[in-house]
Amino acid sequence: MVAFVPKYEQVARQLSDQLRLGLLTEGDKLPSVRTLSQELGVSINTVQQAYYRLEAEGLVEARPQSGYYARTLSQRQQRVPQRSAPQATALPDASSDLETLLARLMQQQRQAGWLPFSLGVPAPRLLPVAKLTKALQQAQRELSNAGTDYELIAGNLALRRQIARYALFWGGQLTEDDLITTEGCTGAMTLCLRATIRPGDTVAVESPVYFGILHLLRSMGLNVLELPTDPLTGVDLDVLEGYLRAGQVQACLLVPNFSNPLGCCMPDTHKQRLVRLLETYRTPLIEDDLYGDLHFSPDRPRPCKAYDPHGWVLWCGSFSKTLAPGYRVGWVAPGRYAEAVLQIKRYQAGFSPGLTQQAVAQFLANDRYELHLRRLRQTLKTNCARYQQTIRRYFPPGTRISGPAGGFTLWVEVDPAYDTIALTNALATDQISIMPGRLFSFQPQYGHCMRLSYGLPFDDRVEWGLRQIGHRLHQQCAR
Amino acid sequence: MVAFVPKYEQVARQLSDQLRLGLLTEGDKLPSVRTLSQELGVSINTVQQAYYRLEAEGLVEARPQSGYYARTLSQRQQRVPQRSAPQATALPDASSDLETLLARLMQQQRQAGWLPFSLGVPAPRLLPVAKLTKALQQAQRELSNAGTDYELIAGNLALRRQIARYALFWGGQLTEDDLITTEGCTGAMTLCLRATIRPGDTVAVESPVYFGILHLLRSMGLNVLELPTDPLTGVDLDVLEGYLRAGQVQACLLVPNFSNPLGCCMPDTHKQRLVRLLETYRTPLIEDDLYGDLHFSPDRPRPCKAYDPHGWVLWCGSFSKTLAPGYRVGWVAPGRYAEAVLQIKRYQAGFSPGLTQQAVAQFLANDRYELHLRRLRQTLKTNCARYQQTIRRYFPPGTRISGPAGGFTLWVEVDPAYDTIALTNALATDQISIMPGRLFSFQPQYGHCMRLSYGLPFDDRVEWGLRQIGHRLHQQCAR
Repeated sequence: MVAFVPKYEQVARQLSDQLRLGLLTEGDKLPSVRTLSQELGVSINTVQQAYYRLEAEGLVEARPQSGYYARTLSQRQQRVPQRSAPQATALPDASSDLETLLARLMQQQRQAGWLPFSLGVPAPRLLPVAKLTKALQQAQRELSNAGTDYELIAGNLALRRQIARYALFWGGQLTEDDLITTEGCTGAMTLCLRATIRPGDTVAVESPVYFGILHLLRSMGLNVLELPTDPLTGVDLDVLEGYLRAGQVQACLLVPNFSNPLGCCMPDTHKQRLVRLLETYRTPLIEDDLYGDLHFSPDRPRPCKAYDPHGWVLWCGSFSKTLAPGYRVGWVAPGRYAEAVLQIKRYQAGFSPGLTQQAVAQFLANDRYELHLRRLRQTLKTNCARYQQTIRRYFPPGTRISGPAGGFTLWVEVDPAYDTIALTNALATDQISIMPGRLFSFQPQYGHCMRLSYGLPFDDRVEWGLRQIGHRLHQQCAR
Repeated sequence: MVAFVPKYEQVARQLSDQLRLGLLTEGDKLPSVRTLSQELGVSINTVQQAYYRLEAEGLVEARPQSGYYARTLSQRQQRVPQRSAPQATALPDASSDLETLLARLMQQQRQAGWLPFSLGVPAPRLLPVAKLTKALQQAQRELSNAGTDYELIAGNLALRRQIARYALFWGGQLTEDDLITTEGCTGAMTLCLRATIRPGDTVAVESPVYFGILHLLRSMGLNVLELPTDPLTGVDLDVLEGYLRAGQVQACLLVPNFSNPLGCCMPDTHKQRLVRLLETYRTPLIEDDLYGDLHFSPDRPRPCKAYDPHGWVLWCGSFSKTLAPGYRVGWVAPGRYAEAVLQIKRYQAGFSPGLTQQAVAQFLANDRYELHLRRLRQTLKTNCARYQQTIRRYFPPGTRISGPAGGFTLWVEVDPAYDTIALTNALATDQISIMPGRLFSFQPQYGHCMRLSYGLPFDDRVEWGLRQIGHRLHQQCAR
């Protein structure tokens, strides 16, 4: 197969050569997207994609209302994880040991006093708790009978309108009628899987992939096909196409924007190609866009839904990672599967609670959400850089760290001689929880990796915790 | 098969003979449960069951803090529906016409201005809306980060403790660890079905049966086996035993207390036999006890769970019919399936919202719930009697009306010459909604029946509505 280099990648290479050759040095401002687009005679979108790529590689950083800047040399030395290479099998691993470990970790990370690097949510102090509390009381006043009535089956109308309005930011042409609210993003994915495929079918996912997705699929009697995944650009579409052509995949469940745990963001050209592929093979894409709003660069990356005129994409999202995990407010725009999703919701879940939905709608209505997001994104971006820096300092040489351009998880690879499950157990005595990499695949891989969430603002305790992880790794090595 | 007459039924016959012979007349107080138990040398429980039976037959009525009284002659003239006789088939009816009709009715009944006899909830003015609103605000103050944090997977601890406490009323030996909270009772049933059986399996249900249960089972790829059901005592256990022996049933999903729509309440002896049967055939019972707290007689009927030492019963309930439909707070005590149910909840639904759960726990903590229930039960009991009276007055001769001893639905059978789907359509011009009987089976039956909810307090408008239904029936007859 002749390697085709997309235009954005050509531009990215050109710029990264300049950076490596020292033509652009630390702190230098790079040309604006518009200027470069005119200079090179390529579209604005292409330049934007090139910058995303450079940002993901740790070569440049975006500063709000300003533009892109070359990063310092020490920042650039970061080595990103390698492209994953899972086996071409769809057989689930039935190890119940991992399930027991997972259950234990999920309990530990919520205990008082623990340092929960394993927890996949922003720290509560980053969330607008007081404003939401007021919004909920306002919702009680607005809803008939103070929200004790059944909500509409499709979900709260005000909320669906607000989600449609926010979708305009990425060019989404949605109305309230295209949207169905759900019990968080997990609820959305469960509904979508039930509406599109049947037990025994095979679902293609990223690798490494969020353990919740793995167990969701297994608990529904579905087979999991893990795709080779690039830590910057996401799944390998050539490999996926092969499986589609062979009729071996009945649905894709992907996180194209800032996947969990890798943090990769598919370039727009990949997203377009992916949707065209799925159209050709009449295969649904369940798009988990849970992290799309948590981008570090100025613009929100588009979901695949933006390139989906024929409705093969079921676009799922939630406010669990940006507003209130405990409110359980998510949504799906199910495209051509709308009627099927609504039926499943009607019969299997029934009405969802209206109060928390109305409260979120309240919060979204007057741009408080956008303001809150801007602050949250800035904090997460800073966290990300400081966590990376600290990991580089304390972890063993040869450690590779992902360079996410959004979301709040880092994927860390240490030398394959290390065992991160043993590390996790050792860290329990320090009351530090991490997610060992082994949990992110049904195949025996990633035993030397871990996921660290940077949802916790960086402080002395966080620094101590990261140093302690490094310390335990060195101890393991010594043994 | 020689008919075995249980002791409670012998007592009931003795008393009903006295009533029919005029030995006890209108308004007479019957002997107390304790007195009769001593006189006849039978257990208190047997006498209680006998009174339940007489109450269900409309011969006596229970007055709170007083005892049982003979009903007036006109009250007694009521004819109850006949024992149902569905076919011995587990094949689902695939008619999408019924689904379309159901979707339309569910939309209509929520429209302003409509008289919703079809709606299966108590009217909002019967619910403690203001107190719940305060309880929710209190919950915001009590929960960490005002309820924006993830709740425990098993559900809110305070709520599970309160549910366990209330279970003591029927002798339930439950602790918080035996309970898992769910998204309403539908959420509970969905979890239970997923944890116990697989697509293609067959589930035995009452007949007629709540349409939500039929569609839930179908949407999960399960077969429905409708059992012959007595309008007073519930499903025919001899028939069920035959199916169990033949290995044709993998689970039962029953509403032993005040089933929807028939309102039947299984006698304790039946419940005991049912659980023993299921133990023998190692078959789970998903017990929908949604209406158990809405009893008209002084004591709450026990659920089958009360007779289940080996954990074959998954006891499901919710506060949707007694406190707040829109809060979506339900529960299950899954017995031996606890781990399986928790796994499904963990992976497929994730955490449930903590706020509404904590608010309900608040409400339950200081006996406000018991006080509220007492009032609600009294209102529903009065409603029931007045609805029955009005139906008798305006509906065609030969109409049979169920005599529920709890819950809030009446099952009405008119002459088989009538068509209640046509009636439903005709009533749309009056903005009156009813649930046609045809929706309560996947088999072509109950076309001359309807379910009427008496959750709406009786007033002139309700009387007009019921008269109008009678009027439309007479019109249909004339044509």
